[in-house]
Amino acid sequence: MNVGILGGGQLGYMLALAGYPLGLQFRFLDPSPEAPVGRIALRVNADFTNAEALERFANGLDLVTYEFENVPVASVKALAQRLPVFPPPLALETAQDRLSEKSLFRKLGIVTAEFVAVKGTDELAGAVKKLGLPAILKTCRMGYDGKGQWLLRTGEDVARARSQMPEALPAGSGAATASEPPYVLERLVAFSRELSILAVRSRTGEIVFYPPVENHHREGILRLSLAPAPQLNAKTQAAAEDIARQVLEALDYVGVLAIELFECDGTLLANEMAPRVHNSGHWTIEGAITSQFENHLRAVCGFPLGSTVAIGHSAMLNLIGDVPNPAEVLCIPDAHLHLYGKSPRPGRKLGHVTLHASSNKLLAERLADLPAFFQRPIFCLDAALKACSDSATASAL
Amino acid sequence: MNVGILGGGQLGYMLALAGYPLGLQFRFLDPSPEAPVGRIALRVNADFTNAEALERFANGLDLVTYEFENVPVASVKALAQRLPVFPPPLALETAQDRLSEKSLFRKLGIVTAEFVAVKGTDELAGAVKKLGLPAILKTCRMGYDGKGQWLLRTGEDVARARSQMPEALPAGSGAATASEPPYVLERLVAFSRELSILAVRSRTGEIVFYPPVENHHREGILRLSLAPAPQLNAKTQAAAEDIARQVLEALDYVGVLAIELFECDGTLLANEMAPRVHNSGHWTIEGAITSQFENHLRAVCGFPLGSTVAIGHSAMLNLIGDVPNPAEVLCIPDAHLHLYGKSPRPGRKLGHVTLHASSNKLLAERLADLPAFFQRPIFCLDAALKACSDSATASAL
Repeated sequence: MNVGILGGGQLGYMLALAGYPLGLQFRFLDPSPEAPVGRIALRVNADFTNAEALERFANGLDLVTYEFENVPVASVKALAQRLPVFPPPLALETAQDRLSEKSLFRKLGIVTAEFVAVKGTDELAGAVKKLGLPAILKTCRMGYDGKGQWLLRTGEDVARARSQMPEALPAGSGAATASEPPYVLERLVAFSRELSILAVRSRTGEIVFYPPVENHHREGILRLSLAPAPQLNAKTQAAAEDIARQVLEALDYVGVLAIELFECDGTLLANEMAPRVHNSGHWTIEGAITSQFENHLRAVCGFPLGSTVAIGHSAMLNLIGDVPNPAEVLCIPDAHLHLYGKSPRPGRKLGHVTLHASSNKLLAERLADLPAFFQRPIFCLDAALKACSDSATASAL
Repeated sequence: MNVGILGGGQLGYMLALAGYPLGLQFRFLDPSPEAPVGRIALRVNADFTNAEALERFANGLDLVTYEFENVPVASVKALAQRLPVFPPPLALETAQDRLSEKSLFRKLGIVTAEFVAVKGTDELAGAVKKLGLPAILKTCRMGYDGKGQWLLRTGEDVARARSQMPEALPAGSGAATASEPPYVLERLVAFSRELSILAVRSRTGEIVFYPPVENHHREGILRLSLAPAPQLNAKTQAAAEDIARQVLEALDYVGVLAIELFECDGTLLANEMAPRVHNSGHWTIEGAITSQFENHLRAVCGFPLGSTVAIGHSAMLNLIGDVPNPAEVLCIPDAHLHLYGKSPRPGRKLGHVTLHASSNKLLAERLADLPAFFQRPIFCLDAALKACSDSATASAL
């Protein structure tokens, strides 16, 4: 089966590595000549809006999927007229706009932080007055890894955001018109932790869920995930699955869907979704019976889905900005290294390491040993260590 | 790090899939334009003895390894003059000739079936007289998957082998001279089962062992492996490790080494070795913390070795001659599919399936369910099912 993938970054690269053993062939479309998939698969190197390149890309494919949610919807819809495209273009369109996404959550009765649309600088003061502070102002489009966001705690923060707002309007977001509010203001939620759930829906409507994961961010970038999320009770897990199921069914979704959640006083608020495989699911390569990459491909190709059961406990650490010498990681007991073949750049995700252990107690020991191996700061390590240790203590009681 | 691999079949293909996440780059040398690695890595498509191709292949590499033990030793030695080559050429040379291999075992005090060198047809009768029947006559070179072997039970079998022997001398085995006996006659051993052990030695002399595996052959081809071998006692495991350790150290070996063993009345006899990753180690992709492919690359690249601990219990089934529809395999609970991208041909290894379970009892259930999914004969299934069930019963007592 010939699978076309829009986007050739690390997610596409890991999709290909998971898909070859299933007998799949891949062709990627990516504008960057340095895209990680270049060395392992056929690739059309062109802009996503290049009609001739889209034609070359689509020729002979059995289906198309994507690994990047900022692919222009018009290109995806054009492809969908001649080929099956999964997840469906509607999912992409919804996820590309924070307001559409939050409106979908609201329509489905899924709790979110309170929010207000902000069409421009003129509406900011009114929105702040309505929601109160602290709040977060976010661009509706093209924001990722904390970019395009302003945390507003004081009047000065509001004034600064107001002065930066015009520049923040992303270049090339041609889809935004005067009628589309380019910002959304959200009430800041005092959550106890961030979780995510990855769900998979097949072409026949079968749905499976990975266990929810606890995520630790810094500077808006995911640094470390613990999987399954320590000390997650059955009620919260069921609530997370319920949220994901509603979204999957509302969008007639096919593939892996990630939903980021805030846990607040035992309830879950939906933050955002990604219509693709997700960084918080990288642990599944070693930590689950079937990886998110394999399950995404099984789903979009019409194969039966694989088991999402976790094997033991995993901690996934992103390698950001620079990469260690492989030997530095490979001497860590039960550490698995994944480098993406990208050139180093500050803030860039270049790889990840998954620590794997049979219990949270052992995982806490593995995490505690990490600084002895790594010659670089490990963000969020203390918080992760505490979560694993607390969980180990609770299960021992 | 740039790794050159001689041979571009499924073993090279799985080495590349395991090596990309470690940040390695690959270049293969293989004479077949259809070599499975062609779609995922750079490849020099030429004969192993082509000096110009060897030059192009070697240029810019950091080291060379091989995935095929019938690479001409002269080519490997030429490469070794300019680049590190692992496993060492001596290991390749020894494994290419059954008599050298058995002589090494004998020199190290490792028990084998009794054997006699047979220089040609004239010496066959004398050798049969010396060893007695039943016995097996094998070509010293180029035999694999049961090819180049004659089972001799009667005088008629001997006569037939004698008449076939000249034709059996493989074309192109230029290294054989009049002084090298081209055949070896082995006494047929009444073994209770076939095992194999995979061991890994690093460039610094560190050694790790995978748990021994029980192998089931039919028509000389491996059909099914159970890992770890059911009902293996600690003494047998230690004996297998001891055999492997002696060979590794005698050859100053670096990389994965496979040794096939016969278990007879609680003792082990060495049958043959393969200086490379091995079909009986494919289960390690899902069934061990570190796969044989990753550990081979860790070893040859000078990285620390990874844990060889088994996760649960695995059954690996080869897909030979034709391949099922992926959906047929992927609907089997906890089945992992590995297709090699080769075109179907009778007797050809085209892929494998690993069934994974937390206990031998569950594995026996998975095996028992197989015929309901597969629309083809599953060789050795009954024997494997019995071994898993017996083991489950024994551990329940």
